[in-house]
Amino acid sequence: MPKPSPKFAGNKELASLGAAIRAARGEVGLSQEALAAEAELGRGYVGGIERGEHNLTLMNLSRIAKALGKRPSVLLAAASL
Amino acid sequence: MPKPSPKFAGNKELASLGAAIRAARGEVGLSQEALAAEAELGRGYVGGIERGEHNLTLMNLSRIAKALGKRPSVLLAAASL
Repeated sequence: MPKPSPKFAGNKELASLGAAIRAARGEVGLSQEALAAEAELGRGYVGGIERGEHNLTLMNLSRIAKALGKRPSVLLAAASL
Repeated sequence: MPKPSPKFAGNKELASLGAAIRAARGEVGLSQEALAAEAELGRGYVGGIERGEHNLTLMNLSRIAKALGKRPSVLLAAASL
């Protein structure tokens, strides 16, 4: 599992995307574990994304969005990005 | 400069995002070189992104979007993502 990106620690954009992903996960009633399994990503990694610790790639964003039943652009817009 | 991601060669999502970035660059009349300089990324890397060869990170997407005067979510929506 990728280590948190210290370079991006406290990054506002990553933090707001993480919060938007957490909110969307709550809306569909998925646990972090279930979202990680659906997106085929590690649970710890998904937790780190929600905390804004990872500078995730487009394909991982796309996997998470699909698992949440949303478009990647909608997740970014929900994070004001 | 990151080598093209063979894993994602021919990936539709990356290809459509690359096309959307190229179109947005054309709209604002920037050369690839000028976009790369503005986004503080390598020119070759930006060329690879436009060809759909790189699974770019959120922060690089954000830099490119800013350099194009657009939101990252708008670029993704333009790519139907």
